[in-house]
Amino acid sequence: MTDFIRSGQRAADQLRPVRITRGYTIHAEGSVLIEFGNTRVLCTASVEEKVPPHKRGSGGGWVTAEYGMLPRSTHTRSDREAARGKQSGRTQEIQRLIGRSLRAVFDLKALGERTIHLDCDVLQADGGTRTAAITGAYVAAQDAVARLIAQGKLGASPIRDALAAISVGIVQGMPLLDLEYLEDSACDTDMNVVMTGAGHFVEVQGTAEGAAFTRREMEQLLALADKGIAELVALQRAALTSPLSKQ
Amino acid sequence: MTDFIRSGQRAADQLRPVRITRGYTIHAEGSVLIEFGNTRVLCTASVEEKVPPHKRGSGGGWVTAEYGMLPRSTHTRSDREAARGKQSGRTQEIQRLIGRSLRAVFDLKALGERTIHLDCDVLQADGGTRTAAITGAYVAAQDAVARLIAQGKLGASPIRDALAAISVGIVQGMPLLDLEYLEDSACDTDMNVVMTGAGHFVEVQGTAEGAAFTRREMEQLLALADKGIAELVALQRAALTSPLSKQ
Amino acid sequence: MTDFIRSGQRAADQLRPVRITRGYTIHAEGSVLIEFGNTRVLCTASVEEKVPPHKRGSGGGWVTAEYGMLPRSTHTRSDREAARGKQSGRTQEIQRLIGRSLRAVFDLKALGERTIHLDCDVLQADGGTRTAAITGAYVAAQDAVARLIAQGKLGASPIRDALAAISVGIVQGMPLLDLEYLEDSACDTDMNVVMTGAGHFVEVQGTAEGAAFTRREMEQLLALADKGIAELVALQRAALTSPLSKQ
Amino acid sequence: MTDFIRSGQRAADQLRPVRITRGYTIHAEGSVLIEFGNTRVLCTASVEEKVPPHKRGSGGGWVTAEYGMLPRSTHTRSDREAARGKQSGRTQEIQRLIGRSLRAVFDLKALGERTIHLDCDVLQADGGTRTAAITGAYVAAQDAVARLIAQGKLGASPIRDALAAISVGIVQGMPLLDLEYLEDSACDTDMNVVMTGAGHFVEVQGTAEGAAFTRREMEQLLALADKGIAELVALQRAALTSPLSKQ
Amino acid sequence: MTDFIRSGQRAADQLRPVRITRGYTIHAEGSVLIEFGNTRVLCTASVEEKVPPHKRGSGGGWVTAEYGMLPRSTHTRSDREAARGKQSGRTQEIQRLIGRSLRAVFDLKALGERTIHLDCDVLQADGGTRTAAITGAYVAAQDAVARLIAQGKLGASPIRDALAAISVGIVQGMPLLDLEYLEDSACDTDMNVVMTGAGHFVEVQGTAEGAAFTRREMEQLLALADKGIAELVALQRAALTSPLSKQ
Amino acid sequence: MTDFIRSGQRAADQLRPVRITRGYTIHAEGSVLIEFGNTRVLCTASVEEKVPPHKRGSGGGWVTAEYGMLPRSTHTRSDREAARGKQSGRTQEIQRLIGRSLRAVFDLKALGERTIHLDCDVLQADGGTRTAAITGAYVAAQDAVARLIAQGKLGASPIRDALAAISVGIVQGMPLLDLEYLEDSACDTDMNVVMTGAGHFVEVQGTAEGAAFTRREMEQLLALADKGIAELVALQRAALTSPLSKQ
Repeated sequence: MTDFIRSGQRAADQLRPVRITRGYTIHAEGSVLIEFGNTRVLCTASVEEKVPPHKRGSGGGWVTAEYGMLPRSTHTRSDREAARGKQSGRTQEIQRLIGRSLRAVFDLKALGERTIHLDCDVLQADGGTRTAAITGAYVAAQDAVARLIAQGKLGASPIRDALAAISVGIVQGMPLLDLEYLEDSACDTDMNVVMTGAGHFVEVQGTAEGAAFTRREMEQLLALADKGIAELVALQRAALTSPLSKQ
Repeated sequence: MTDFIRSGQRAADQLRPVRITRGYTIHAEGSVLIEFGNTRVLCTASVEEKVPPHKRGSGGGWVTAEYGMLPRSTHTRSDREAARGKQSGRTQEIQRLIGRSLRAVFDLKALGERTIHLDCDVLQADGGTRTAAITGAYVAAQDAVARLIAQGKLGASPIRDALAAISVGIVQGMPLLDLEYLEDSACDTDMNVVMTGAGHFVEVQGTAEGAAFTRREMEQLLALADKGIAELVALQRAALTSPLSKQ
Repeated sequence: MTDFIRSGQRAADQLRPVRITRGYTIHAEGSVLIEFGNTRVLCTASVEEKVPPHKRGSGGGWVTAEYGMLPRSTHTRSDREAARGKQSGRTQEIQRLIGRSLRAVFDLKALGERTIHLDCDVLQADGGTRTAAITGAYVAAQDAVARLIAQGKLGASPIRDALAAISVGIVQGMPLLDLEYLEDSACDTDMNVVMTGAGHFVEVQGTAEGAAFTRREMEQLLALADKGIAELVALQRAALTSPLSKQ
Repeated sequence: MTDFIRSGQRAADQLRPVRITRGYTIHAEGSVLIEFGNTRVLCTASVEEKVPPHKRGSGGGWVTAEYGMLPRSTHTRSDREAARGKQSGRTQEIQRLIGRSLRAVFDLKALGERTIHLDCDVLQADGGTRTAAITGAYVAAQDAVARLIAQGKLGASPIRDALAAISVGIVQGMPLLDLEYLEDSACDTDMNVVMTGAGHFVEVQGTAEGAAFTRREMEQLLALADKGIAELVALQRAALTSPLSKQ
Repeated sequence: MTDFIRSGQRAADQLRPVRITRGYTIHAEGSVLIEFGNTRVLCTASVEEKVPPHKRGSGGGWVTAEYGMLPRSTHTRSDREAARGKQSGRTQEIQRLIGRSLRAVFDLKALGERTIHLDCDVLQADGGTRTAAITGAYVAAQDAVARLIAQGKLGASPIRDALAAISVGIVQGMPLLDLEYLEDSACDTDMNVVMTGAGHFVEVQGTAEGAAFTRREMEQLLALADKGIAELVALQRAALTSPLSKQ
Repeated sequence: MTDFIRSGQRAADQLRPVRITRGYTIHAEGSVLIEFGNTRVLCTASVEEKVPPHKRGSGGGWVTAEYGMLPRSTHTRSDREAARGKQSGRTQEIQRLIGRSLRAVFDLKALGERTIHLDCDVLQADGGTRTAAITGAYVAAQDAVARLIAQGKLGASPIRDALAAISVGIVQGMPLLDLEYLEDSACDTDMNVVMTGAGHFVEVQGTAEGAAFTRREMEQLLALADKGIAELVALQRAALTSPLSKQ
């Protein structure tokens, strides 16, 4: 087992350069372009003053997500899901994950009878789109909530903790943080981890693509994820404390 | 935190009664009714002597799964997916999980250019349908492979290891093995674990439904899963060594 | 014209062994596994305390049916209708037939503003699935109605008469009762007959698969159906008077 | 039971005025407007020099049908099926019936590897659209076959017998031939009968809308159908022997 | 550039024979068969006493259109859109054009909270189906409005001006009015023009199929359209002043 | 008629600030972000080395387009078309327009048997998305063609002329160039014009939203469009002669 060399001399436990641009588009209540290296995802948060049927009359709100990839965000063009007339199983799985993750840090009761729609659209893909989406959607949600507070519609924030996500995996026997596309294609084990600012797990989804993985490998991966997420949470905080200047 | 009392005096680390009936229906190459307590899933394995487009000409085979619930397998009737004209995100997520898990123990090259379709249909649901489906589909796949060997179409089995799955979760602070429906509805954390006979992980999917969970809780859950899966693998082995008597 | 020999020395006017298992699953208000030889159909009756739009405010209820075949209930695997995204014309034709037939013995006014959903799912197919479905759905409907009476929601039964169905056909010139799959494939004329306990017709659907049939042949077929249905009605009555023991 | 008075003093066993216009449109190989009173159906036969997958390489041909109603062919406007994105169960049932009926008089082997598509579109509906469609489609098919013979593509006709269809029913206890819409809405029993020129049955589909019907009533209905179909076959023959003048 | 010879010695600026038959079918409030040469479109206007959601409570009405082609209205049979499960982009584009055009001459406020549905179904196609549809739908709409006035539901007509449409194009360098199918296939530029009785434009849709067209060519085409539409408006007026005799 | 004041003191015949960013994303053969003021559309050109069925074996190529809006590119969030399962009529109309327009400047024969897919995705909408899409797609197509030439797959460019598009309209009686959203909502007449570098028309689509428009108004609008498109073609040329620096 020789060590795998990452592009750009990146260390095994190093994130790609992360860039968080708030106010990327003008109409949404929250609009964030998040970049994990070459992966670029536009995350918007839209507030709607009503809730889906299963929450009506409950007094509580809802947070939901949709995910899409532009047809040529990838190396070779993929079919447009709108043209094919259905979302793939992968798309649905990812948007369910994003929505579930965000709801884990929301006090839905405190949100009131309104819905926050998180739209995560991949402009450019190079691995880790779902984790970038969750990390960016959290920032967009914060901006949308801040606006609700500024408008006097909410007295306090219903967001209880920070939230970020990162991928980890084992490539040629080596545990790596934040896989880019080529690493993801080559990995034996791929894990997506979603954690709160307090360092607790919201989601852990590990898959053996090649050989099954051991408990020890799992622990190495979780430790890497823990480190990466702490860094992401710091970057989110920094982005959120900068003034929001509309493009 | 008072201890949660399980139905039927079941211990926290105890599986529900498991029943594996091979040859449950007559047409499929493998046909298994698996029961985890009141959860009953019919798993059939069908051999088709061709492969999907992405495997054509590769010399290798394919293993894929579909999942469904009969409309009244649940407490209240659900809409029939065929009538609604689409499978839910949940259904797609589960059938992707089943297929991916089974492929993890298959040497697709050794299977030859043929497909094994695993159909997992829930006749009665009481929690844990996806883990029962994986555990039963493995047995059905074994029967289908045995028939291919008996027919001289395969010289040796392409199945490299046993495979089983179980759910674990935390209910009122207490880690539990093999959640039934009421426990699943009440749990804070829900985790589905798929492991090989060798005790390695194929899939780990943990979700915080309520509070986020800690590393220590995760370790408790993985230990429970490990114990449960070892028992399931023994039950599969026992079932597979009994003579297959068609109903 | 030499006589066609039926499998198992069955006489031309003889039903296959019929088995009716009530309480086959636990959640539905009525749940019946009906077997006509190797044909096995699970029929559940679900009560919903509302009616479809066209009956709203009418004071009357509704009875409707859905039908499905598990993908490997047949000799070779069929596509799953939920995955294909639509029900076939055959499926729709059969479920419309089941619903219409059951409504013929229901006093919908007396049912009150509620709906009985009959789900007929074929676990194993060997000819005659639609007639088994109607015959089993009637028993499931009786159990659902009995529960409504036991709950005090209904004072008297809205079911006015018994209902059963059977197939008849002409194979190699010979009129046969209750066709199994091989006979059905070989027949010149195939007829499905639905009758009440009083011996009157609810549906007659005869189709010349090969040569057109004469009035005399039609009369022979109706006489066979009449005999078979009288026997089925007796079997239904016997099943309904046994105590219902949940599996 | 007082006698039901039919519109226009029509006798119980009398057809509505039937008009068969050949060459109604110019592009199709056969194009027939058939009128049963106010019911008007445009039936075209289109020849395609290939067959569907299940007939490929068989040497034989195929005959298939599609059916549709213009949105305002009825008293109140119905949704357009193309806009709704699916054909109703009723539409599918009817087009399957038309196709099956026409195939019953075709020697598919003698047709050669080609398909005849029969499109039956209801311009105006007043009951009996499916029986008018079958009766008209037969004439359109004859014209299409005649053209194939004239072109030297066929040496002899693959059509073995004439084919027509009529509805019969019991209204206020009175058996009636060829129900118009108001009669159809009021009837207790409704039966569609498809017969050959030789007077044999191709399809019999009887449904008790209200009370179940007796064997004696069934015989009365079949006798009425027999009379009506003999008249329709004569009208078809007369239409087919007139010169075909394109509109 | 040699002159293109039109079929039937038609002059470049001459319409095909136009025939407008009111009362073509009996159920619709307005029902018009319009023929431009061999192009035949059935246009019905149906009045519904409610409006779509976006107009509810506005006090105003709505006018909308749907368009379809019978499968064998064309030279070779096209797939039935209802069977394919979706309307083509072309169909949607045309029906949006028809609806928009008709609304341009309607005072929707004066129509009151009701909807006029215009269904334009092509029975036979030979070029210009969308312009025939608009021209015929206008006449059908007039008949529907006349009935609303006769019933006392409207005091005055909400239709503010006449409306007609025609195609123009350049074939082998020659500007032509009212293209038939062969001309349409051969043309370099194709333009559909919708105008009011006052001679103003409602829609102009010009497309270069081959070479891009110049401003001067555009002016020639608009002049031709102007002439054609004046003639169509006169023909509409004549048709509308004849007594409406139901077929 | 008082003069309408445009935002930012824009003159009636003045374009919004136009920005063309080539190489906006890294995977596509051509990738252009085009901005008309606040309208921002990402246009990618993807080369595929095969053609759709209708061009197979023709020796010639194909150019086609798809269009989409991100759900929150607009003032209020719209449903995601992929989630709804179908593209709206508007979407289909626009993508047909883009594809048709681009094909008008392509020598498809000279392109060879390959397809250029143009994906135009609106990131932010403020009126004129379809005209920005056409103008940007032309630049992306140029980049894709340049790459084919650089790779030696093409000897010379199959693009015969420049192509750009602009909207014009009449607002409060005043003809305006390049409508932004508020102007578009208020306009009486809205026209989209697509022209070549040589100043000829490829598409003219004018619609009276309010009052019908006169010939004189049409001429004013066409003159405005002519001016705007000449400016856009110059901006395209400038963008294409700058070095392409990948972001």
